[in-house]
Amino acid sequence: MRVLILGGDGYLGWPTALRFSARGHEVAVVDNFSRRRWHREQGTDSLTPIRDLDERIAAWHEVSGKEIQSYLGAIEDGDFLEEVVAETRPEAVVHYGQQASAPYSMASREKAVETQHANVIGNLNLLFAIRDHVPDCHLVKLGTMGEYGQPEIDIEEGYIEIEHKGRKDTLPFPKLPASLYHCSKVHDSTNIHFACRTWGLRATDLNQGVVYGIETDETAQDERLINRFDYDEIFGTVLNRFCLQAVIGHPLTVYGAGKQIRGFLNIRDTLACVELAMINPAERGEFRVFNQFTEQFSVLELAQLVKHAGEHLGFSVEVQHVENPRVEKEEHYYNAIHTKLLDLGLEPTLLGEELVESMIHLIERHKKRVIESSIDPHTRWNPVKSPAGQA
Amino acid sequence: MRVLILGGDGYLGWPTALRFSARGHEVAVVDNFSRRRWHREQGTDSLTPIRDLDERIAAWHEVSGKEIQSYLGAIEDGDFLEEVVAETRPEAVVHYGQQASAPYSMASREKAVETQHANVIGNLNLLFAIRDHVPDCHLVKLGTMGEYGQPEIDIEEGYIEIEHKGRKDTLPFPKLPASLYHCSKVHDSTNIHFACRTWGLRATDLNQGVVYGIETDETAQDERLINRFDYDEIFGTVLNRFCLQAVIGHPLTVYGAGKQIRGFLNIRDTLACVELAMINPAERGEFRVFNQFTEQFSVLELAQLVKHAGEHLGFSVEVQHVENPRVEKEEHYYNAIHTKLLDLGLEPTLLGEELVESMIHLIERHKKRVIESSIDPHTRWNPVKSPAGQA
Repeated sequence: MRVLILGGDGYLGWPTALRFSARGHEVAVVDNFSRRRWHREQGTDSLTPIRDLDERIAAWHEVSGKEIQSYLGAIEDGDFLEEVVAETRPEAVVHYGQQASAPYSMASREKAVETQHANVIGNLNLLFAIRDHVPDCHLVKLGTMGEYGQPEIDIEEGYIEIEHKGRKDTLPFPKLPASLYHCSKVHDSTNIHFACRTWGLRATDLNQGVVYGIETDETAQDERLINRFDYDEIFGTVLNRFCLQAVIGHPLTVYGAGKQIRGFLNIRDTLACVELAMINPAERGEFRVFNQFTEQFSVLELAQLVKHAGEHLGFSVEVQHVENPRVEKEEHYYNAIHTKLLDLGLEPTLLGEELVESMIHLIERHKKRVIESSIDPHTRWNPVKSPAGQA
Repeated sequence: MRVLILGGDGYLGWPTALRFSARGHEVAVVDNFSRRRWHREQGTDSLTPIRDLDERIAAWHEVSGKEIQSYLGAIEDGDFLEEVVAETRPEAVVHYGQQASAPYSMASREKAVETQHANVIGNLNLLFAIRDHVPDCHLVKLGTMGEYGQPEIDIEEGYIEIEHKGRKDTLPFPKLPASLYHCSKVHDSTNIHFACRTWGLRATDLNQGVVYGIETDETAQDERLINRFDYDEIFGTVLNRFCLQAVIGHPLTVYGAGKQIRGFLNIRDTLACVELAMINPAERGEFRVFNQFTEQFSVLELAQLVKHAGEHLGFSVEVQHVENPRVEKEEHYYNAIHTKLLDLGLEPTLLGEELVESMIHLIERHKKRVIESSIDPHTRWNPVKSPAGQA
């Protein structure tokens, strides 16, 4: 299959590109290296020493004999993206090419605007490019469970049947997004759904939980194929950050009570889910939504798991509750349905101590590269005003 | 009250500014004249010969002795908007400053991007400016009934209580927006709701029906205060267009079967609703949603009404069904609740033949200015591809 991967230099995009290439698909990637740029701007970096995209692609060719095509540019540039789509004529587009950090989107007006502009306009350009050049192409869009927020009812997969005053309809599941980044993903869902209803496009929105893990079968084949691993307050996700904290002797920073519940999945399962969606495409006109995670945990449960695994390996691990920088419910009902990917054949890689220990080993190899000052949370969802700021 | 009106040169913004100024509020307006620019670009124009904003404001000063402050600039420019908010320190912001045409947003990728960028980023900048400078200020945002689309259940005012698997929650009413413009308004609602939940802002979203009418008490006081009146396929709304068609002997262009039902209201009621919202502000942290219309009609019912009134005045009026350029249900259930503004004291000005006849009289005075070629619909929601476009 001809597959175009937007954000193909990223934490999920790169291993996806390798997996699909390994399985014989014709892979092209698009990236503008904004994640690398944001890291430079903030003085942070991936824990793992990732190579330039060209080097990565050359190494993959050496290892596998396979070619990956690459296009450098921003998808917010509609003419650029249109040319790429017209040239590659993909049968599936996997769209990871977004600013994906909630704290980044909450750090300032400028960063909020950058996030919503990049995400919403990039995705809108993509919808037009597909409509005008490859209307039969299947869009596989990475969404997020954070679009739903914390409702008091079970979270269904994208839609909910509502009975109201004696009538019934199945409508988009109402969203309570958790940050301005998450808002941008809700906007994308609204636009994609509209494009499917109006233009007859086909799309699958993968509302993904929090991803953990580093390696995949392909990235492990050569040091030059190594995947990005972020642990800083902006781009790091919680379990990855806890594992790193355990290694360097930094207390595991639990935000608030730590009873916040989320869905989680292993990065290997992300790739499996994207592949399942791709080889079982949505119908023309269908906007299909899958909740993409394998297990629910509270943040505190994860901290306990990492503490246990870390101590088993001889590290001394402390769990510290820090003031929650986010505005969110810390004790809440949470039950999200996630059966559709299982129905397509997903076999989950569940989280256990062994997996945590293997992450800890990989982190240990690169621990000299850790920038410890980047770990603690500084970005507040509701910043306290300085008296000067308030005049 | 100190009131800042975004889009204060527009069809609703200008008469709102006059009304509030007449009633003793301290009014400042912001505009970048984009509606005037879009008309120039398309070779279309307001039927009524509207004056420049400076002249309008000077005339108002002559007529009433009142001052209106004006700021020229685009709210997509966050620094500009922040300065205006910091300087004017509004107690209420009435936000009309958006690209408000559904056909415009569907005309091309460029226009879709322009619409979503201007609307979403302008509104996002506003939320930050309020948060950082006047957090107690009440945002009165013009939304649209078109955000809801055509669900099979009654449309509630912003929220719906959902019972699901034995649990209950009151959540945002699910949206099925009818164009990429309407999508942008859904995005705004999502962002404003988030800002209220997270930053404790206060906002009222007025999901408005289709507005008709030209004059208000204040615009009628002097020819130089005359209001904009659009009738072209891009910016004209249905009843206004029908009245103009009746005057010039152009068939009333009903899109498709004409059984599409919408909510409608008189422009005088728009001003009354905005004022009611403003003097009865939302609470801090509250995102309040009102459905702002007074009556439901099908498009065909309106055409019949205009035909009848026109013929009563001696015009010969024909109703013509043209191919529907939009993707929408033409026969559908539609019942939208709209009691909250009535509860605040709204006394609707209902639509009748007399009102239509008075519009027809006003249109007749300016009929020499009509650009007839701008009336028929050319913008298709789902453009048929040329064989060349499809390669």
